[in-house]
Amino acid sequence: MSSLPLALTPGEPAGIGPELVIALAQAERGDSWFAVGSATLLAERAAQLELPLAIDDRIERPTRAAGALTVLDVPLQVPAVAGEPDRANAAATLAALDRAIDAVLAGTAAGLVTGPMQKSVLNDAGIPFSGHTEHLCARAGVDDVLMLLVADDLRVALATTHLPLRAVADAITPELLRRRLKILDAGLRARFGIASPRIGVAGLNPHAGEGGHLGTEEREIIEPTLRELRAAGMDLDGPVPADALFTHTRLEALDAVFAMYHDQGLPVLKHAGFGQAVNVTLGLPFVRTSVDHGTALDIAGTGRADTGSVACALTLARRLAG
Amino acid sequence: MSSLPLALTPGEPAGIGPELVIALAQAERGDSWFAVGSATLLAERAAQLELPLAIDDRIERPTRAAGALTVLDVPLQVPAVAGEPDRANAAATLAALDRAIDAVLAGTAAGLVTGPMQKSVLNDAGIPFSGHTEHLCARAGVDDVLMLLVADDLRVALATTHLPLRAVADAITPELLRRRLKILDAGLRARFGIASPRIGVAGLNPHAGEGGHLGTEEREIIEPTLRELRAAGMDLDGPVPADALFTHTRLEALDAVFAMYHDQGLPVLKHAGFGQAVNVTLGLPFVRTSVDHGTALDIAGTGRADTGSVACALTLARRLAG
Repeated sequence: MSSLPLALTPGEPAGIGPELVIALAQAERGDSWFAVGSATLLAERAAQLELPLAIDDRIERPTRAAGALTVLDVPLQVPAVAGEPDRANAAATLAALDRAIDAVLAGTAAGLVTGPMQKSVLNDAGIPFSGHTEHLCARAGVDDVLMLLVADDLRVALATTHLPLRAVADAITPELLRRRLKILDAGLRARFGIASPRIGVAGLNPHAGEGGHLGTEEREIIEPTLRELRAAGMDLDGPVPADALFTHTRLEALDAVFAMYHDQGLPVLKHAGFGQAVNVTLGLPFVRTSVDHGTALDIAGTGRADTGSVACALTLARRLAG
Repeated sequence: MSSLPLALTPGEPAGIGPELVIALAQAERGDSWFAVGSATLLAERAAQLELPLAIDDRIERPTRAAGALTVLDVPLQVPAVAGEPDRANAAATLAALDRAIDAVLAGTAAGLVTGPMQKSVLNDAGIPFSGHTEHLCARAGVDDVLMLLVADDLRVALATTHLPLRAVADAITPELLRRRLKILDAGLRARFGIASPRIGVAGLNPHAGEGGHLGTEEREIIEPTLRELRAAGMDLDGPVPADALFTHTRLEALDAVFAMYHDQGLPVLKHAGFGQAVNVTLGLPFVRTSVDHGTALDIAGTGRADTGSVACALTLARRLAG
């Protein structure tokens, strides 16, 4: 198990990220991690919430003490107000993410755990940022990654992620399926330590196309690609009708589900484990996990945000880095 | 509570429907129902499974005794073989469904519970049958119905049902949403006895379109239609991102979920309650429930089929008829 600490970015300064980090720092930790962001912001937000927070900067040996936090300081341009994102801080927020990526790439951190960012704030500030994932691809020099959501023992990977529904069918190509199933298979082996991963692949259409009566993509695209990948050694069950794939009997025999699109795969995962769901990016040369929630600006600064997801993201990052 | 019996069609003679009816008839029942299908088939299948089955035809006062069954006899053309559908029996299978519909329309039965049919067998026999639902619409003289799946206290209605995924976005029109949400609202009131139903409506796109960044149907079609229906007195929460809609916290405040398409709504329902899920058709002038599984030809005749769904379909039909 790596003895290196994990790097955690609170994300959007006006969101719930900073107070989640502060909340985690209130208890003694069994694992070692440091935050990458504005030390001033974290001190101010802790004071606002009337919580103790002794900040140090020893990132090579982060504190695990209750009420204490190690921070790799990346200052903001203007003071952050909870609930009110300011585009003046957009560049600094992205800089914090970049400093954390630098740390994992340089081998200073064992893995990256990211809090939620507010994409629109960066875009409003003129920064062409289309999401953590794309930014991580570019920084890591990889062509493609895979989004995998994990809640307890349920793992759901997505062939396509943030596309309008009407664009999904055309996006399902043999190339895409091949590339992303390979990332999933390799990730389950390398990161999750599963020797022979068995992956359940959903159909694109209801009833997996019902023999061509409800869509032809299963016959024309998915089935031939799965045959090819099976011949190359992958253990794939599918295409399976999505509603059959997520029954407990079926899931028990699988190490992961590969869903064709966002709302085919994530409702079950969120139903089964909201608050404990973690977003894992597979295909990067380092471990990256993320919370499964947004900035929650409406409750930012109240201290009411649930630390469940970020705590699970840290735990899983450590396991994957081990 | 209606004292009339329920009418139950075993469906495809070669499927698991007949043996499910026989299995239910092995125990004494608290409720009153009769089967509509071939008495010879039921007697033969029971003999094959070495189960007792005393058949009578007193449908006005069906037996509830263990090992006994009341049958409204609709003879087959040729003997049925489990696992091997024969198109020679297609017309008789449809005739049984029609006799059961006659019974509910005539007020002889309090509601209709249907076992699984094999659509392709009817089509191969030259009968233009596109499914139970369409046939029921035609027989009942209604323009449209709504498919509602029920598992325990989770109720999921579908705006669209058996469409290829690429056809879904264009099918979501104000007219469709208006018509089917009204059927749902009226059905929850009239059949489920909910005085002021609160319905959660999913977005079509991931993140419910994320303010137009991931699709425009929420802004252009769904939101305006929901505003209009709210003004007409309906209590609608949405459009909500599907993965948020199915979290327990959100569901607790809802009487039903209205999903935009099959694989957005059914995976959670099947995950939560497979074996206990019941299909309810709302919008008909009578109560109709159905099993949520198919003919399972691969295990037909073995006696291994699970009676969970058909038992739940009978129980729910009685509740809705009450």
